[in-house]
Amino acid sequence: MDITSDTHSQHISQQYNQDLETIKTQLMAMGGLVEKQLQEALDALLDGDSQLAIRVRDNDTSVNDMQLKIDEECVRILARRQPAASDLRLVIAVIRATNDLERMGDEANKIARNAIDLIESGRIPQGSVEIRHISEHVRSMLRDSLTAFARFDTELALKVVQEDASVDSEYTTAMRSLATFMMEDPRSIGGVLSVMTVLRALERIGDHADNLAEHVIYLVKGRDIRHTSVDELDREALGRSDKR
Amino acid sequence: MDITSDTHSQHISQQYNQDLETIKTQLMAMGGLVEKQLQEALDALLDGDSQLAIRVRDNDTSVNDMQLKIDEECVRILARRQPAASDLRLVIAVIRATNDLERMGDEANKIARNAIDLIESGRIPQGSVEIRHISEHVRSMLRDSLTAFARFDTELALKVVQEDASVDSEYTTAMRSLATFMMEDPRSIGGVLSVMTVLRALERIGDHADNLAEHVIYLVKGRDIRHTSVDELDREALGRSDKR
Repeated sequence: MDITSDTHSQHISQQYNQDLETIKTQLMAMGGLVEKQLQEALDALLDGDSQLAIRVRDNDTSVNDMQLKIDEECVRILARRQPAASDLRLVIAVIRATNDLERMGDEANKIARNAIDLIESGRIPQGSVEIRHISEHVRSMLRDSLTAFARFDTELALKVVQEDASVDSEYTTAMRSLATFMMEDPRSIGGVLSVMTVLRALERIGDHADNLAEHVIYLVKGRDIRHTSVDELDREALGRSDKR
Repeated sequence: MDITSDTHSQHISQQYNQDLETIKTQLMAMGGLVEKQLQEALDALLDGDSQLAIRVRDNDTSVNDMQLKIDEECVRILARRQPAASDLRLVIAVIRATNDLERMGDEANKIARNAIDLIESGRIPQGSVEIRHISEHVRSMLRDSLTAFARFDTELALKVVQEDASVDSEYTTAMRSLATFMMEDPRSIGGVLSVMTVLRALERIGDHADNLAEHVIYLVKGRDIRHTSVDELDREALGRSDKR
């Protein structure tokens, strides 16, 4: 009887670990899809490929469906496995992360919709250099935040948090220069407003990558740093065990 | 012994109910604070009261602190009480709701910051009628979504979900007319961009009120309607037990 019971509880525990592994894998798949949507929306915009832009615009539901599916699985684990400590934090972090990824998907969709308008009306009047520059930065933040999640790597997560500030400042500078351009050439206003919308979407994707990184730190360290400044984090040298 | 044990488990169960009541009460308090921040940011903007705008801008941390506190309490309940069924859904809904309220607080803060710029530069160049109109609408959505949460009222929640579409269309119309105004009077560009930012913040607050309402439906009905269209919901006549 004891052996049977042991085998049984071992079986449950294996199944439990597998459940946790599954939501993590699914989250990575969702992240990969968002990365692809973002990449293609930007390619469509910068190459003037309206067919691709339309495809990205219409592909939004897959990301949404993944969020519902993963969240449902997380709630099922909470109800049936009653996870504690770091397992519980993993489930909470995944629920928070699907929310951020879903919003990034929305922003990629917004970029695709503005790409369609811009391509139809001729060309990007101004700002393609800024879009290229900021989008490189934001895409690397997204990639790093997903890698940090996959590897539970708080050092990498902290790097993402720190980078968000420089994206914000690049964004502010770009918006100012676009406003000046509008004043000099009022005929460009319609197009420049679309470009501004694209830049804003990129800036928000950066914010959500920052959030993802914060969820990683929460899940590994058990500490919620969502409203802690980068300066404070630096002072504490979070992510390092030695005090320097 | 039986009596003692009964008293003990009754005590635990009372404490548990009290814990659930507490997170709900705290969420309502957080919602009340966000409503106040939004109201004051709009008053500051429309009355040209820069002192008030500065106060709202600097008050953002209270909302953030409430989010951290409530979320921590939710995770504690998940770990210690292992809630199931509707109790579990309440905790999940509260975690999702604090996220939406926190973002609304950020948007109210953004309105306050733009109010400061607009007041300093003279006056609102255009769009105060639109701000007034859309803000009335959004404030009533926020109020209703909080009431729906407090009363577990899915009918009211569904009304909020349906209203979001009309806010979106008012927003689109207002943005178009502001773009036209800019083209006619390029000197107004700086100010109009700030007004656009305010309108966008209001539109996003409407989106988050819509999310809050969706969390209410999830918590009462156990169904996640985050990516279901209003038309589909209408067809299903969700929130009614009789089929009409």
